[in-house]
Amino acid sequence: MKRSFIREILEHTNNNTISFAGGLPDQSLFPTADLQQSANRVLKHNATLQYTKSTGIDSLKEKIAQFYCEEGFPTKPDNIMITSGSQQALDIISRYNNNKTITIESPSYLGAINVFNLNNIKQKSIILEDDGINLKGFKSSIKDTKFSYLIPDFQNPTGKTYSKEKREQIATMIKENDAILIEDSPYSELYFDTRNTMISSTIPNNSFHLGSFSKTLAPSLRIGWIRASKELLEPLISYKEAMDLHTNGLSQYIVDDYLNDMDKYKRHLEVIREQYKIKMLIFKEQLDHYLPTFEYCEPKGGMFIYGKLPNIDTSSFIRECLKHEVIFVPGSEFYSDDSVSDEIRFNFTHTSIQDIKKGLAKIAKILKTF
Amino acid sequence: MKRSFIREILEHTNNNTISFAGGLPDQSLFPTADLQQSANRVLKHNATLQYTKSTGIDSLKEKIAQFYCEEGFPTKPDNIMITSGSQQALDIISRYNNNKTITIESPSYLGAINVFNLNNIKQKSIILEDDGINLKGFKSSIKDTKFSYLIPDFQNPTGKTYSKEKREQIATMIKENDAILIEDSPYSELYFDTRNTMISSTIPNNSFHLGSFSKTLAPSLRIGWIRASKELLEPLISYKEAMDLHTNGLSQYIVDDYLNDMDKYKRHLEVIREQYKIKMLIFKEQLDHYLPTFEYCEPKGGMFIYGKLPNIDTSSFIRECLKHEVIFVPGSEFYSDDSVSDEIRFNFTHTSIQDIKKGLAKIAKILKTF
Repeated sequence: MKRSFIREILEHTNNNTISFAGGLPDQSLFPTADLQQSANRVLKHNATLQYTKSTGIDSLKEKIAQFYCEEGFPTKPDNIMITSGSQQALDIISRYNNNKTITIESPSYLGAINVFNLNNIKQKSIILEDDGINLKGFKSSIKDTKFSYLIPDFQNPTGKTYSKEKREQIATMIKENDAILIEDSPYSELYFDTRNTMISSTIPNNSFHLGSFSKTLAPSLRIGWIRASKELLEPLISYKEAMDLHTNGLSQYIVDDYLNDMDKYKRHLEVIREQYKIKMLIFKEQLDHYLPTFEYCEPKGGMFIYGKLPNIDTSSFIRECLKHEVIFVPGSEFYSDDSVSDEIRFNFTHTSIQDIKKGLAKIAKILKTF
Repeated sequence: MKRSFIREILEHTNNNTISFAGGLPDQSLFPTADLQQSANRVLKHNATLQYTKSTGIDSLKEKIAQFYCEEGFPTKPDNIMITSGSQQALDIISRYNNNKTITIESPSYLGAINVFNLNNIKQKSIILEDDGINLKGFKSSIKDTKFSYLIPDFQNPTGKTYSKEKREQIATMIKENDAILIEDSPYSELYFDTRNTMISSTIPNNSFHLGSFSKTLAPSLRIGWIRASKELLEPLISYKEAMDLHTNGLSQYIVDDYLNDMDKYKRHLEVIREQYKIKMLIFKEQLDHYLPTFEYCEPKGGMFIYGKLPNIDTSSFIRECLKHEVIFVPGSEFYSDDSVSDEIRFNFTHTSIQDIKKGLAKIAKILKTF
């Protein structure tokens, strides 16, 4: 199996490298002091260090269920399974559905493509348009595959967001074909202006909705979850159990304690949204200044600006940039057919504002002699 | 896939249930206050909450490598992969070796049997004798399978320990057949009197040695690891990455910080060994008093006393006991062929001394009318 370019890059950069590559949150925004306080409280009790349930601790499942209820998507704790990040959620579902074929966006999340390959799931890629997956292609593909994986909010890698109309039509197609949707939503809370409606909320018996605290609280906690009907969730429990017994208990208790002050969490989310929007606008301004030929759509949330540098083989270009200590991800990484492309994904959240300017100036300079 | 009886039981017991079932450590011995202090230090830095490397954080890998070096088994950080408990270590190795056949002990660890089944690995079970696996059976089986899974120290479920002679002969057989050994060692630090030699140490290029902090520090941290040659470890990295990106970073940093005071850790291990030995001796005394027909071998470490209640179908007997709020694991759970048996695994570490007496008295009473 091919290793993830992004994770390989992460292991080969040095402290001077300016990275627009990984999907890393801005770590200066982590609620570290609050999590420290939570850890302090949690670690007053020996029981938080003992083995716990395979599906996750009850009180955290209750709180996550409550999030869905607040969004008008009736959910009980039994509909939730806590996973080691939403990456593991994807793996558990894929493992149970191994050897099937799945309809995915083109381009799509590299970690999902890897998980599908690991589980021998063939992928039918349908082009992702600015307002969501191409509907004609999706309609035809879902009839055959009955199984699909979409990232409707601020997609990885493209940053694109599905329109209300496409969400509704996809839900209808899933239902008509008695198909299954995996709706991956790691970035949904990172909207700049308006929250989107979950496709899953209208097809609760035909969907797995995946969530995560990696982008809202902190990645190293590795707390994600699956929201599904009890019927869909039940057979996954023995898989989760065989895979790692249960998700890190200490992290679950810490997140659960942190969420006891829900207002604090909501204020924290407001800050991230605001700061990420500012960073995106600065990134955009600098992109237009330094790389005026770069064609892209402005994202409405999330962590990425995606576009193309016409006629530049970005897979070769990145090798030059790496030498000069500035990196991004070439678009070819996100296509299951590995085709060469002139596309680039920039992460705009991780780097400081100063380094955004410095990094893009470097890339512009390298491009001139490429 | 069948769910683990033990984990299902964990989800169905109440606060009054006296449990000799799960392989749970004594939580009163967790170094909770020390881990709290470590968490406090670790959570002064935002960077500990960011994504990290797939194989684990460098400083923890260095410390684990050092443990091996101290035991005379030369090991570098590159020989270590941190996993979400050793359960995940087993899964990663099995996944890479899916569809093979493996030589295992009979009975063996239920979680391993489940992982092998999940990965379509057929199991050839060879009887486990008091001093280790039957050598004639192992010799014949390893020739065919070239792949084996053993728990040489204080085995789960039997508590049995391999003799020095059998360790040496197994190493020779593995080498002669250019086979692979998975040596699972979650209990190795929990010896009562003497430490055993790792079989892997004499066959470093033919072995995966699995370790864990679940039994020495705390299970909820979910920190285990694989020790293997670089050649054997390298292809597993892309699997780990696809499965959950990386093991919980916060826990890794906490354990790493805790281990900065190595003397403290060593004193802590001494306390556990001493306390577990005391508990085992009390359990044994009470067993001999309340269940004089129970036949067993005294373990030399670990967490389990295993034996048989002649002519009692313990799978039916446990159902009666569950009603009366006392549980153990019937031996049938640990055989890959699911055969009925008169065997029982008792965990002696989790329950208080008072409850050991109370629980065994209850079982004796239920047995009288069974």
